[in-house]
Amino acid sequence: MPPFARVAVIGLGLIGSSVARAVRQAMPTVRLTGHDADADVRTAAIRLDLCDDVADTPGAAVTDADLVILCVPVGAIGAAAAEIAADLPADAVVTDVGSSKGSVARSLAAALPGVAIVPAHPVAGTERSGPEAGFASLFQGRWCILTPTTGSPPEAVERVSAFWRRLGAEVELMDPDHHDRVLAVTSHLPHLIAYTIVGTASDLEEVTRSEVIKYSAGGFRDFTRIAASDPTMWRDVFLSNREAVLDMLQRFSEDLSALQRAIRWGDGDTLHDLFTRTRAVRRSIVEQGQDDAREDFGRSHP
Amino acid sequence: MPPFARVAVIGLGLIGSSVARAVRQAMPTVRLTGHDADADVRTAAIRLDLCDDVADTPGAAVTDADLVILCVPVGAIGAAAAEIAADLPADAVVTDVGSSKGSVARSLAAALPGVAIVPAHPVAGTERSGPEAGFASLFQGRWCILTPTTGSPPEAVERVSAFWRRLGAEVELMDPDHHDRVLAVTSHLPHLIAYTIVGTASDLEEVTRSEVIKYSAGGFRDFTRIAASDPTMWRDVFLSNREAVLDMLQRFSEDLSALQRAIRWGDGDTLHDLFTRTRAVRRSIVEQGQDDAREDFGRSHP
Repeated sequence: MPPFARVAVIGLGLIGSSVARAVRQAMPTVRLTGHDADADVRTAAIRLDLCDDVADTPGAAVTDADLVILCVPVGAIGAAAAEIAADLPADAVVTDVGSSKGSVARSLAAALPGVAIVPAHPVAGTERSGPEAGFASLFQGRWCILTPTTGSPPEAVERVSAFWRRLGAEVELMDPDHHDRVLAVTSHLPHLIAYTIVGTASDLEEVTRSEVIKYSAGGFRDFTRIAASDPTMWRDVFLSNREAVLDMLQRFSEDLSALQRAIRWGDGDTLHDLFTRTRAVRRSIVEQGQDDAREDFGRSHP
Repeated sequence: MPPFARVAVIGLGLIGSSVARAVRQAMPTVRLTGHDADADVRTAAIRLDLCDDVADTPGAAVTDADLVILCVPVGAIGAAAAEIAADLPADAVVTDVGSSKGSVARSLAAALPGVAIVPAHPVAGTERSGPEAGFASLFQGRWCILTPTTGSPPEAVERVSAFWRRLGAEVELMDPDHHDRVLAVTSHLPHLIAYTIVGTASDLEEVTRSEVIKYSAGGFRDFTRIAASDPTMWRDVFLSNREAVLDMLQRFSEDLSALQRAIRWGDGDTLHDLFTRTRAVRRSIVEQGQDDAREDFGRSHP
């Protein structure tokens, strides 16, 4: 029997629509309701038949739910929680999918006093956005990190864990602040750097935009993928996880300055030592199934 | 008829062994000789049957050649050229595959006075190294940039162009210094940044190495691929293209500082504007066939 019988998904973009599709596939008996603040997305959700019912208001979507999943940008989670507060059944569990967890846990607790809240973060996604971009297998074999707070009932944590396992994810429990530091380095800093270099390359004068695109196979194209991710989602991630991101960024800048100095002074050993060390990290990621072993990301070499 | 009849490949790693395999496939009548400074690589090249003859010295490999391709790290090109000078036939054309071209053109000219030299850079590769890592289709549909100097005979430039087209590449002519600035941004800076962030992530204390690997799907894993590239090759690239790399790195650091400031002061508009701009670059790269359209690099979502 599914851990929840009536699931409401608020926010039907890449993640929300993938949750809906995965629930339909893994737990077909679940009654699924959905809502999105954008009327065009609601229309698309109906056309794509993502839910049993697409409600015009967040309140109407949650009124019967025993699990509510907030799949909105982290900057909008507090407001989304406030919008459902009045219609939320007393026994409902509320969770989310936000990429930062400390600030999210605080805004959820503030907006929903006395409610069973289990903040969560499925570490999965693509560079695409919107209800058409989602797919049911997005969470298969990926990690979903739950960051319960002192206010999270253990029974609710167990049911949310079971829910994510049913969607194919592996569940891990973590302290919210530790989550925010881990993801600052494994996800937030990489996105910030990718956005930056793509911007830097676009702004050059003597090297044209068309040259940058034409010769991007030299490495640049790898960065453009995550730099194509959703602008609103990522703006909110950086603003909501500011402290951890700024700390990681500071460490990165120091390390980059050291390499800059090594290049300026022709210190090849420093470069060679680092480049040899970093090789091993890739090997571990492939060995532990966190990326495909196929060289060059399995790009087609016709 | 092939543009050259007797081709010598000096250096049989990823690129050299791919050139040999591609020549075998595209121009089977060509007599192919090879050499590598590493005896183990020579043994592997014989086992893999990469060439008609694997010579024990660079001189012996080039003695009959009408085209010599130096496929060694750019820091070793001057020495490799000097080693073949005495045995090089008068009518032979010498080219290379180095990722930086200004310094390479100068060291080739110094080591081989009066020789027909056509510096070249096939913009292709993977994160793997060594003779086993090469494959014949590596250059299919990729750009090969020739950077002829005043000393390069037009007829030699035309034959080297024809040679690369036979291997499936599209050929472009470029001024050496402009090449070095274009590749500094499309290839060298991306590699430097990827090496740096992988190093930064490995050196954290409170976030463990195993956590970094476990949650790398959040974006970090993308950077580990190019950070697994050959350490010696890349050390040499940064040292040989120092000016252009340092200039691009300076621009990147300024842009990163601006984003750092925007995050610190909660300036979401600056972040959102950049993140929206960078999206378009990815679109152009996919539209122009410089990367697969498949989301998430076509990674398997089982």
